[in-house]
Amino acid sequence: MKTYKIAVLPGDGIGKEVMPPALKVLDSIGKICGIGFQYSEYDWSCETYLATGSMMPADGMDRLSQHDAILLGAVGYPTVPDHISLWGMLIPIRRDFDQYVNLRPVRLLPGIRCPLADRKPGDIDFWIVRENTEGEYSRIGGRFAEGTDAEGVVQTAVFTRHGTDRIIRYAFELAKKLDRPHVSSATKSNGLFHSMPFWDERFEKMAAQYPGTRIDSHHIDILAARFVLSPEYFDVVVGSNLFGDILSDLGPGVTGTIAVAPSANINPERRYPSMFEPVHGSAPDIAGRNIANPVGQIWAASMMLDHLGEPEAGRMVLKAIETVLANPAAPRTPDIGGKASTTQFGDAIAAAL
Amino acid sequence: MKTYKIAVLPGDGIGKEVMPPALKVLDSIGKICGIGFQYSEYDWSCETYLATGSMMPADGMDRLSQHDAILLGAVGYPTVPDHISLWGMLIPIRRDFDQYVNLRPVRLLPGIRCPLADRKPGDIDFWIVRENTEGEYSRIGGRFAEGTDAEGVVQTAVFTRHGTDRIIRYAFELAKKLDRPHVSSATKSNGLFHSMPFWDERFEKMAAQYPGTRIDSHHIDILAARFVLSPEYFDVVVGSNLFGDILSDLGPGVTGTIAVAPSANINPERRYPSMFEPVHGSAPDIAGRNIANPVGQIWAASMMLDHLGEPEAGRMVLKAIETVLANPAAPRTPDIGGKASTTQFGDAIAAAL
Ligand SMILES: CC(C)[C@H](C(=O)O)[C@@H](O)C(=O)O
Ligand SMILES: CC(C)[C@H](C(=O)O)[C@@H](O)C(=O)O
Repeated sequence: MKTYKIAVLPGDGIGKEVMPPALKVLDSIGKICGIGFQYSEYDWSCETYLATGSMMPADGMDRLSQHDAILLGAVGYPTVPDHISLWGMLIPIRRDFDQYVNLRPVRLLPGIRCPLADRKPGDIDFWIVRENTEGEYSRIGGRFAEGTDAEGVVQTAVFTRHGTDRIIRYAFELAKKLDRPHVSSATKSNGLFHSMPFWDERFEKMAAQYPGTRIDSHHIDILAARFVLSPEYFDVVVGSNLFGDILSDLGPGVTGTIAVAPSANINPERRYPSMFEPVHGSAPDIAGRNIANPVGQIWAASMMLDHLGEPEAGRMVLKAIETVLANPAAPRTPDIGGKASTTQFGDAIAAAL
Repeated sequence: MKTYKIAVLPGDGIGKEVMPPALKVLDSIGKICGIGFQYSEYDWSCETYLATGSMMPADGMDRLSQHDAILLGAVGYPTVPDHISLWGMLIPIRRDFDQYVNLRPVRLLPGIRCPLADRKPGDIDFWIVRENTEGEYSRIGGRFAEGTDAEGVVQTAVFTRHGTDRIIRYAFELAKKLDRPHVSSATKSNGLFHSMPFWDERFEKMAAQYPGTRIDSHHIDILAARFVLSPEYFDVVVGSNLFGDILSDLGPGVTGTIAVAPSANINPERRYPSMFEPVHGSAPDIAGRNIANPVGQIWAASMMLDHLGEPEAGRMVLKAIETVLANPAAPRTPDIGGKASTTQFGDAIAAAL
């Protein structure tokens, strides 16, 4: 039996509550498909930071690197500033493991209220490919004239041909693989004088290698509006770290699935483990009550299966989610109109397998 | 009779078509309210650039500075890269005239199809206050290793206390003036390591001076989603140059008013003329056919009247727009389901005064 080593990082808040249902679903699908999972659970979190001054131990990355994949819950805690907690764990994992692809589905699911008028499941269904290691997310910069009236801050984004080309190529390859040869690029070359004209140039160069693929390029402001006005239009959307971040919350917003959308941080070359997480955060306001929606975490596990080379298992998990959501009588958590606990909702999905 | 000197810059594409209806409406309201307008029209545009190599003459800013306000159409032309055309006219005007406030209403109008389910006119009604002179829009940076595999680009954002405080203060003052004491801030301090923690710090400092005002702060990704999920929630939203740009297209997207929303570039101290423009661009695809929607330009003229100290006239113009839109039998352009030309639609609004 094929066995995968999974590093499990529940993290903070509801991360700790949505993880057990995801592991339960993995165990169920494992039995069905004849695959095994060996979990190493690490409690690295903001609590670790408050106790030790760092989010993870010095050999943390080493330990993670022994695994086939990482399943992450959520990171963040009211008393730890986000830029500390995230730059102390989430962002280093993305970068040191060269998880340069952040892949996020935007998909209107059954049983979830869509905020847009007149849309039904299946109408909205596309992918966001976000650059995940460079660009606007950067520690380059700092403060000047600190504490005086002249105070300010500089923040420098860096885009390389290496980093830009590989994410754009991934988007074109994905469009080909999905047999949906249409790639849309997020830009802002009319305002960001250096970075985005470069991005556009690389996008056009890459597009020339995929003559069968339809392309279009949208300034991020109007692109955000188009996500609301005509989400059916999109197949694969590629964007920089920041633009991809914005679009991949906006997309789930448009489909009403913020609480359930997943996010895959992928190192396509498989030199390092990839990491799978829900889009939602640690939600301290509802943590500890066993009412968080576990679908994002379970859907993340489904994407992990795809990546591990078990696409059939991944598909079955996503199908089970959809089956439960489509059945009005099945349990669901309060955020999507039900009364079930996190555990009960997770159990229903595991049972639907 | 009070007479205002208005610099008129139709610019490119549909800018040239939506300007005449706006001037017609201004003339009508002028007659009603007993105010006069003296227009100086300048044809500065991408065509000027193609003919002369620059978007405006060397003394362009000097000439504009002789006016009480600037009414701009739209800038942009297929054969001139946006970062050339915009950094050659629009952005220098915003900066050299210290128009540090970009104010944009998000308002669900009658007769306009809202892409969201179950909303009616009046449900969505808030203001976006965008920083307009510094931040992410910057020429600081450039290319390295040009033409090699190591090629890349750096782009540096600069935020000053001066620039940050004044825009945040404007937002708090606006909330007070509107008697809607609630300000939401757009941040991304969990990803942008230097700039946004600084922004948050200044926001909190300013908030302390307005103890009666409710505040909240949202990462730009989730904020974008909230614009779709609960736009009723917002009163005044303040954001940096880039975040404000994105939100102020997304907001009109959510209300279905992209083609009709206005944008005011304001120097609140009135040391320099302020500039009023529609949010839409030059739309080369429909230019020359007299079918562009003139409402954005007319609404921009209404905001100009507010700024000139003629709020009653401004209110009447907005009212006329709403009256025509609310009447299903009144003329409207094809983009919002009618058959009228730009001219006819503009005439109807002028007549409704
Ligand atoms: C044209 C472009 C530079 C501009 C901007 O981003 O400021 C436009 O999108 C706007 O919002 O006025
Ligand atoms: C938590 C934060 C740093 C992160 C990001 O912006 O990358 C989150 O919003 C996400 O999208 O995974």
